[in-house]
Parts: sequence; structure tokens; C-alpha cells
Amino acid sequence: MPYGSGTFIYLDNAATTRAAPEVADTVAQVLTSEYGNPSSPHALGARAARLVEAARRQVARLIGASENEIVFTSGGTEANNLAIRGVVYRHSRRDVHVVVQKTEHASVLNTCQALEQEGVEVTYLDVDARGFVTPAQVLAALRPQTVLVSIMAVNNETGVIQPVPAITAALAGVRHRPAFHVDAVQAYGKIALSPGRWGIDLMSISGHKIHGPKGIGALYVRSGMALAALLQGGDQERGLRPGTENTPGIAGFGVAADLAAQAFPDAAVKMRQLLENLYDRLRSGWPDVRRHTPAGDDAAPHILNVSFPPVPGEVLVHHLAQDGVYVSTTSACHAPSAKPSHVLAAMGISGPELAGAIRISLSRFTTPDEVDAAAEIILKNVDRLARRYQNRRTGKK
Amino acid sequence: MPYGSGTFIYLDNAATTRAAPEVADTVAQVLTSEYGNPSSPHALGARAARLVEAARRQVARLIGASENEIVFTSGGTEANNLAIRGVVYRHSRRDVHVVVQKTEHASVLNTCQALEQEGVEVTYLDVDARGFVTPAQVLAALRPQTVLVSIMAVNNETGVIQPVPAITAALAGVRHRPAFHVDAVQAYGKIALSPGRWGIDLMSISGHKIHGPKGIGALYVRSGMALAALLQGGDQERGLRPGTENTPGIAGFGVAADLAAQAFPDAAVKMRQLLENLYDRLRSGWPDVRRHTPAGDDAAPHILNVSFPPVPGEVLVHHLAQDGVYVSTTSACHAPSAKPSHVLAAMGISGPELAGAIRISLSRFTTPDEVDAAAEIILKNVDRLARRYQNRRTGKK
Repeated sequence: MPYGSGTFIYLDNAATTRAAPEVADTVAQVLTSEYGNPSSPHALGARAARLVEAARRQVARLIGASENEIVFTSGGTEANNLAIRGVVYRHSRRDVHVVVQKTEHASVLNTCQALEQEGVEVTYLDVDARGFVTPAQVLAALRPQTVLVSIMAVNNETGVIQPVPAITAALAGVRHRPAFHVDAVQAYGKIALSPGRWGIDLMSISGHKIHGPKGIGALYVRSGMALAALLQGGDQERGLRPGTENTPGIAGFGVAADLAAQAFPDAAVKMRQLLENLYDRLRSGWPDVRRHTPAGDDAAPHILNVSFPPVPGEVLVHHLAQDGVYVSTTSACHAPSAKPSHVLAAMGISGPELAGAIRISLSRFTTPDEVDAAAEIILKNVDRLARRYQNRRTGKK
Repeated sequence: MPYGSGTFIYLDNAATTRAAPEVADTVAQVLTSEYGNPSSPHALGARAARLVEAARRQVARLIGASENEIVFTSGGTEANNLAIRGVVYRHSRRDVHVVVQKTEHASVLNTCQALEQEGVEVTYLDVDARGFVTPAQVLAALRPQTVLVSIMAVNNETGVIQPVPAITAALAGVRHRPAFHVDAVQAYGKIALSPGRWGIDLMSISGHKIHGPKGIGALYVRSGMALAALLQGGDQERGLRPGTENTPGIAGFGVAADLAAQAFPDAAVKMRQLLENLYDRLRSGWPDVRRHTPAGDDAAPHILNVSFPPVPGEVLVHHLAQDGVYVSTTSACHAPSAKPSHVLAAMGISGPELAGAIRISLSRFTTPDEVDAAAEIILKNVDRLARRYQNRRTGKK
């Protein structure tokens, strides 16, 4: 296979991450040596079953959960679909109400829109100018027939951390408390998460955002929480997710979770510092930079969303790519369509600031040298492109 | 990780297969080098997207399909669910009728049973004593509101090949022809399949049955065939299957399909011969063996289902496992529950013959020496166990 290489600086870790070497080794070993079907009645099957259970403990441990609260899925999108539909389908579809907010991931928003066509009512909460919802907003939206509240932990485009513990605290006092689902795909391994202690019922996580394999994720399902399955088949994952277990992916996910747990919280502190250094560099070189990611503990440590009006984000991203700096505009799940970010639009951002947004996302493997080099390349391109777009606007050439 | 090894003879290839070394290499390389998100706007993303499209061509080529007719899923179970629900959900759920047969895989049967609870009517066709349905049965079951016929290509427990081309030919003459879905998970790479030429609308396949990765499969969707998606999210797989693409799994599946195409049909001829040699050995050593798999071209080349009454299959399988011969009783998707095979029961098999069934399944890597050794070990255990169960029955000790 003709793999190209060349050197580049990968700052698109919110889209996906490079698998850790230990993860790739584990996946390859399971594929060729531990290839049994966990349901098979012999030692190879039994060993595969034990691998799955060991990985379940590893994935659970990073969020202080019990292993029987982890249901493996094919990824974050399936986990979000399973959580939302799994709650809704336990009820008659009429007279059922769901509360979400407007900057959720497409796998949450589009699922809700599909459910609306099935007769479910959905409230889409506004966010403020910094991207936050409040517990009061959630409480105000509740109805007697509200069965589910779904609020993400970390926004995938801006890194904003929603006040999930405050929302669970507010919900705790509600009569007929609805189920609470949290899309934690961008949060898992990056910020502290305690679904059990906080009172979260369902939480979606994914392997490939934490240097694990693609094609594997999980849904945390609080002990005792009832859920309808989306797929029918065998008895795997206690009937909640049939199909032969993706044992290499699951084992690799377990290793990735272990590595993330070992690195946390030092890696988060390091990433946040690199990110702030990067922003400082950008601001000193280009004082007109607009920052869409809140500073400090209000945002995850690995995502910085900025624009350099009048430079269009899409143009900047492509020029950066040519110079070997890989970032993105919005969520990878929206590309290649060039529609503007629904997240920033919900925050009231518009015009050149909206069109100019780029997302820079680090990993725990990002180095200070990479950040320095990236800052320089970004500033060089912004300078050149700003001139061009400024002139266009003023009619100069 | 404490991987055990030891020597064994793996004859449980219908449950899952060992990944080919080339597959494992590709998966590991994609995980660590070609880890981009196919939707990302830079070279790493573009290369990932090209890997996916190359694999799509490889997977399509083995069934003479066009690459735009392949939708990647997380496996065969999801492909079967997507096919069946995807057709049914294009219609109002009331006044909709589906035709299947009784020996389908759990992912088909249980999906149909779940749809019945949503108001869909389902006809479950009987099979004859050898496990076959006929085109005439299918035609007789059709109603004006029949939207889907789903008949598997190769039964996963017995290897029986259903007369799929004859069924498509019969359906071709029908007014308001329903969609035709084929679960080809056990057939892909083992027998010739031409969905386009035969007139199949939807066909499920899976990676891990052909020495590819677990956690990846595909649904062939005939060009122009409309289908409802089961999951909502990003635009991946033309909106039919959202979620970040499992690029290592997809690339590995592509390599596995290529290897299977190179090996076909020689590998099938070789497997069939080994299987018949095995059966001949078993029959000469134990003339009372009951064969539940038809001989010759009526069955796939890799599956042999037999019983040695009065020996219970479950007991025999465990004794064989202790002697290093790995086979299974029924589908791995039913274990570890010890309920008897619904497939054999539908064929009218009962009593000790039903309880005695074991499934022996080869791969193209199975050697004559392995088959010889396995035959000897099976006969030794059957001899010992038959004595014990014969004595139990007659009250001797």
C-alpha cells in the first residue's frame, strides 16, 4: 500500500488521534493470536471473553464506574444514538419530551430531529455568548413528560465544559426526574468525570479520541438503568448490543484507557499550558485574533477555537495544511460540506468571525516545539491571507 | 498481557477466523501511521479517505459489485439490522409484511420479532428435512403488502446453501416485487455470489469470517435502492451509516477480501475435500454418525454439522476442547445458553440427534494433518463418551 509520509504537525486531535504504539501492538496481537469468539466453548473463546472483561474494567476505571456499567458500541455516534433512542423507545413515542442544547454533536442533534418525525417533542436550549447552558435553563424546560435530558460534557468545536455536575444536582430535586445522558466523547481522558458520583445515567465515550482504535466506543449505563436495544441479534453485551464483539478494538480501547489514566491529570495540565502558550503567541503576533474558547477551567485542555477575520477559516486551514500544520474548521463530522459551524452560530457569532473559525486541538503527545512551529506558520499564513482578504474587501489589489 | 498459547486445532471458523498476517499488518499501520479522520481537511485525512475507498473497491470486487454499492457497518449483525429495518422503516409500520425462513441467524430472526411488536407482520417459512426453503414457498407467502423477503445464502450452523438465485428469479416475475435481502455472512468468500447479476437488493457480509478484523462488516445496497438509516449523525457512508469511519478495520477488511478473492475458488475446493475426508474418517470409525449438512454443492465448503447419539454435543465439545480440538455446538451467538439449535429443530431433528449436534468448520488455512488429527481425537472421545451415555441410558455403570 502506498503510504505517503512527510513531516507534519498534527493539531487535529479533536477529530481523531494517532493510536498509541501499545494500542496498535495489542490490536495486532488479538487479531492474530487471541482471535477467538468470546462466546465460543473452548479456551480460545474463554481467553477472548477474559480480554473483553479486562478491557471493560480498564475503560470503567477511568471514570470510576463499575465494569458492569460499560456497554461496548462501535463508537461515540452509536453510543449517543443508543442512549437517546434507548431511553425514548422505552416509552410510547407520543407524549414524550426530550431536552438538549443547540451545540450538541450531530449524532445527538440529528437523532433528536429524527425522533421529532416519530412524534417525540424536543426542546433545544440556547447557549450564551460563551457557549454555556445553565442548570436553570434545563429545569425551566422540563415538563411532566420529559424522559431525557442530554447535555454534552465538552463541546467538540470550542472545548467548552458544560456544567454537568450542577445540572445533575439540579435534576436530583425534580419529581419524576428524567434520565440524564452526557456525550463525553471529547471529555473522556481529558477532564475528570465521575458519572456515578454525579448522578449521570448514561455517558458516551469513544476510543479513537484517546489514542485508541477507531470503530470502538462505549456507553456508560448506570447500574439499574433500563434501556431499549437498537440492534437485535445475539446475547452479547447483555443483549444491549448484539454482534460478535470487536475484541481487538475493545482490548485496544482498554489499553488506551489505561494509558490515559496514567497520564491524567499531568497530561491535561501540560496540554492546557501549551494551548495557552499557543494562544499568547498568536495574540502577540496578531492582536485581532478572536478567541471562541473560554480561558481557564471553563474549557477542556486540548481545544482552542479562534478566528482571524477577515481570513476565511476554510482557506486558512488549507494553507496551513500545505505548510504541514493540520488543523480543522469545525467538526470532522460536518466536513467536507462548507456550512458554517452550528456551535459558533448558536453562540451568536456571525460574519467573518464565524466564517473565520479554526479548531486547533492538541494531544498529550504534542510537543512545545510543535506548538512553537505551528504558531509561526499560522501567523505567517494569517498575515499573508489577511492582506489578500482585506484588500478584496476594500477593493484594492 | 498474559496471552496463553499451547497447541490446538482450530475448527471453529464459522464462529470467527484468525486474521491473516497481512490484515493485522495493515490494521496496525493504519492505527499508527494513517490515522487521519477521512473527513479532515488535510493530507492525512485525504489519505484516510482514499484508504476507505480502496477497501470499498476490494470488498465490492469479490461479489462483482460496484464500490458505490458497499456501505460499511460495524459487522454482520448491524448489516442485517440495517437491511431489514432500513426497508421496513421506509414504510408505515402498519400494513407491512416481511417474509423470512426459520433457520435465519438470530440477528435476522430477533429483528423480525422486534418488528412484530411494532406492528409489522412476519411470515417465518418452514424448511424441509435438509434445511432448504423453495422459491415456491416464498412466492406462496407473498402478499400485496410484502415489502421485504430475507433469505440467507449459507446457514451458519449447517452450511446449507439456500437457492438464492432461484428465489430472485421467481421474485422477478412478481407484481410489486418486494426488496430481497440476503444474509451472506457465511457465504462471502466461500461460494460464488453475484448480487448484481442475480437481482439481490441488499446483502450482508462481515470481515471476521474471512480472516479480516472483527468489528467491521458491510451491507451491499444495490444502486438505486432506498433505505432508511438506523443511526443519525454525520454524513459518513452517504448518510446511511454515520460515525467516524473505522479506517483500520475497513482497510483490513479490504485486504482480507483481496486475499479471499485470490484464494477463491481453489481454497473452497480444498476445504470441501478436507471436509469430506473428515466425514469419511468419522463414518468409518463411527458408522452411526448423523450428518446434518448435505453433501456436495448443496452446502458451503467449510461447515460440517454432525451428531454422534447418544453423546450430547455440549459434552463432546468440551472434551474435544480439553484435547485441543476447538469446535462448537451451535452458533456462537447462542452460547453460552445451552438451548438446542433452532436450525436443526426447524429441520425436524429432535432428541439425542438434536442434542448431539456439533459444528466443525474449516478455513482455507486448515491443513490435512489437522483434519487427520482432529478425526482421531473426535473418534476417541465419541467412543469413550458413547459408552458412558449408552450405559446411563440402559442403567449400566
